[in-house]
Amino acid sequence: MKTQLNNKAYTAQELQSKKSLKNNSGSKNKNRKQPPTAIVYCEGNFAKIDGKTANGLVRHSEAYNIVSVIDSTCAGQDSGQLLDATPNGIGVFDGLEAAAINETKTPDTLIYGMAPSNGKLSLADREVVLDAIALGMNIVSGLHEYLSDDPEIVEAAKVAGKISIRDIRKPRPSKDMRLFNSSIEKVSAIRIAILGTDCAIGKRTTATVLARALNEWGIKTVLVGTGQTGLMQGALYGVAMDAIPPQFCSGELEGAIVRASDAEQPDVILIEGQGALSHPAFCTSAFILRGSQPNAVILQHAPNRAHRCDFPNMPMPDPKNEIKLIEMFSDAKVIGLTINHEGLKDIQIDTAIKDFSKELALPVTDALVRPEIELLDMVFKAFPLLRKHPLVAAE
Amino acid sequence: MKTQLNNKAYTAQELQSKKSLKNNSGSKNKNRKQPPTAIVYCEGNFAKIDGKTANGLVRHSEAYNIVSVIDSTCAGQDSGQLLDATPNGIGVFDGLEAAAINETKTPDTLIYGMAPSNGKLSLADREVVLDAIALGMNIVSGLHEYLSDDPEIVEAAKVAGKISIRDIRKPRPSKDMRLFNSSIEKVSAIRIAILGTDCAIGKRTTATVLARALNEWGIKTVLVGTGQTGLMQGALYGVAMDAIPPQFCSGELEGAIVRASDAEQPDVILIEGQGALSHPAFCTSAFILRGSQPNAVILQHAPNRAHRCDFPNMPMPDPKNEIKLIEMFSDAKVIGLTINHEGLKDIQIDTAIKDFSKELALPVTDALVRPEIELLDMVFKAFPLLRKHPLVAAE
Repeated sequence: MKTQLNNKAYTAQELQSKKSLKNNSGSKNKNRKQPPTAIVYCEGNFAKIDGKTANGLVRHSEAYNIVSVIDSTCAGQDSGQLLDATPNGIGVFDGLEAAAINETKTPDTLIYGMAPSNGKLSLADREVVLDAIALGMNIVSGLHEYLSDDPEIVEAAKVAGKISIRDIRKPRPSKDMRLFNSSIEKVSAIRIAILGTDCAIGKRTTATVLARALNEWGIKTVLVGTGQTGLMQGALYGVAMDAIPPQFCSGELEGAIVRASDAEQPDVILIEGQGALSHPAFCTSAFILRGSQPNAVILQHAPNRAHRCDFPNMPMPDPKNEIKLIEMFSDAKVIGLTINHEGLKDIQIDTAIKDFSKELALPVTDALVRPEIELLDMVFKAFPLLRKHPLVAAE
Repeated sequence: MKTQLNNKAYTAQELQSKKSLKNNSGSKNKNRKQPPTAIVYCEGNFAKIDGKTANGLVRHSEAYNIVSVIDSTCAGQDSGQLLDATPNGIGVFDGLEAAAINETKTPDTLIYGMAPSNGKLSLADREVVLDAIALGMNIVSGLHEYLSDDPEIVEAAKVAGKISIRDIRKPRPSKDMRLFNSSIEKVSAIRIAILGTDCAIGKRTTATVLARALNEWGIKTVLVGTGQTGLMQGALYGVAMDAIPPQFCSGELEGAIVRASDAEQPDVILIEGQGALSHPAFCTSAFILRGSQPNAVILQHAPNRAHRCDFPNMPMPDPKNEIKLIEMFSDAKVIGLTINHEGLKDIQIDTAIKDFSKELALPVTDALVRPEIELLDMVFKAFPLLRKHPLVAAE
């Protein structure tokens, strides 16, 4: 499933959408400084499943300005061409030196862009990390093994001076974590959680498209991330829920939302879901609903997916049942369904939209290949006052 | 709330019930070896909130044979007298030396029996731990600070030789954790989860009473613990859910149940719930329902509790709504309600049982102060074949 999602050939419309995703910060904060430049290390895995962090960052990154990718197995090629059959100007190099020399100034950051199943750094990877530190680059990693706890890497960073080692998955010490305390009640922004019927189904993508569309409409919107990929891509607010002990999950998410509310005073806060509320293995969305206390939920569904991602024996849930479950579990209304069109032809997408719309009596659209106004209308139908915001898309 | 629960004066009936809890292993496995002897360290906190681990262990412990308590502020007294106004023969001593000398043989284990809010070991506590190691005692701790990672303690244990340091809260490395994989489907035992409408409401107590009653009836029953207190008290199977990253919560619990099933071949497996499914801060029961895929649920409720424990602004849920939520969230039926009688007079317990029984159309009882047959009948009504087991209570 993940392969399908990461390696599928995208339509021209999708790529247009992706391009504008990539070029739009999703926030109107003019004072925000330029993001640091970054090389993504993905040796042997670019455009493959274990390279999903690199693939995601090349397609969309707000926190880092991705300048190149390292993968000797496809050096000399364009990463966009490799990934989505459309050049993006981000080259692939055969090593750190070649990638660094290609830039006028040594990039600020090396991002470890792989998700090996054992979560461990190989010896060859270690050399690259140490070389990057020697070049004065900061390190960002999503490994289960924390580089900021690795004596050799810490020592190298100390010698190089002013180097930061950022482990995306590393939670704060539990003594610093906060419990849920109902402070979410004071958040005035409309909170919409983007949940799904499965993992890896496009929740974050739909949330990102919606955040940009709302911001362009003049409705100040902040996306609160709940997974490591989103945080690495640049969600300014959020927590990697799967690294937080359950007793602090609701509270830490509530804290991130309250911080976003205080700092940005947004009209709308979108909250990225995880897994599926009905999922036997991954129901972190339970904490997401409790911690964010959303006013509304949008449900992402892939009509052509036969079974839960990575679980061949688990059938996909019926969206109608998932909606019933969500509305029973929380006070939020599900205000619409968004389609992941994997395995669907364009005409089948139309049929799916029509059929689900009738069956569920809800707005249905596809955030990637249908006009964005349909996604906006889904929100406006539920919150009519939002529609009246001044249209500032022309600025 | 916790104070009320830990320090309340118990009725004679409850104490009888407690006594038999303490003296019954809850399992008919005759081959199980004698539990290690243990001194519980609880300086300055015995019979108080921060001493709740010691209080719980003195009342009920299967994994350790508790021989004495250390607390100089109440040295020379009987711990049962202090806690529940009924002597239990477990004395309180003013220090490790006095407690150790009192036994013919130095006890096997020192249990750190406090839960200080900062989760840290004081300098004085450290001395006691080091002294115990020097005496050749094993160490058990439920602190957030892991003693098995403390260089001084590790070094002392190495010098003493053959000393084990057990940190109850310390999770396995995430690389060793398992994901949910549906192997629970092969478990043939009837699985009953004991959930509640709040934290600290008596779920574990009801589960313990029910496990013993079923075992005495000749129905082999295993209780799978999900919290650190239960694990320290001696649940042979279980996981401290609040120390496990959400992505592994369902899977690790499933693993514990499968292990219990394989090793014990029980007729019934009871699963301890955590918090409440409706609780904004603590809804770990979502993972408990997903990971254990129970056949039935028993709900524990305190009719006289005004608001959620530690959350004065959160009203208690109506059991009817909690039942609806549980039955919507999982395929399990709620088969009965058990009452926590805090703040209720005996006649009020009767009224609560009658009223809830009528309102919910379910069996209702109080596991501590009503005949155990009522609790058994709750299970037999849902699973009639169980009733036919041979009565072996007389053995």
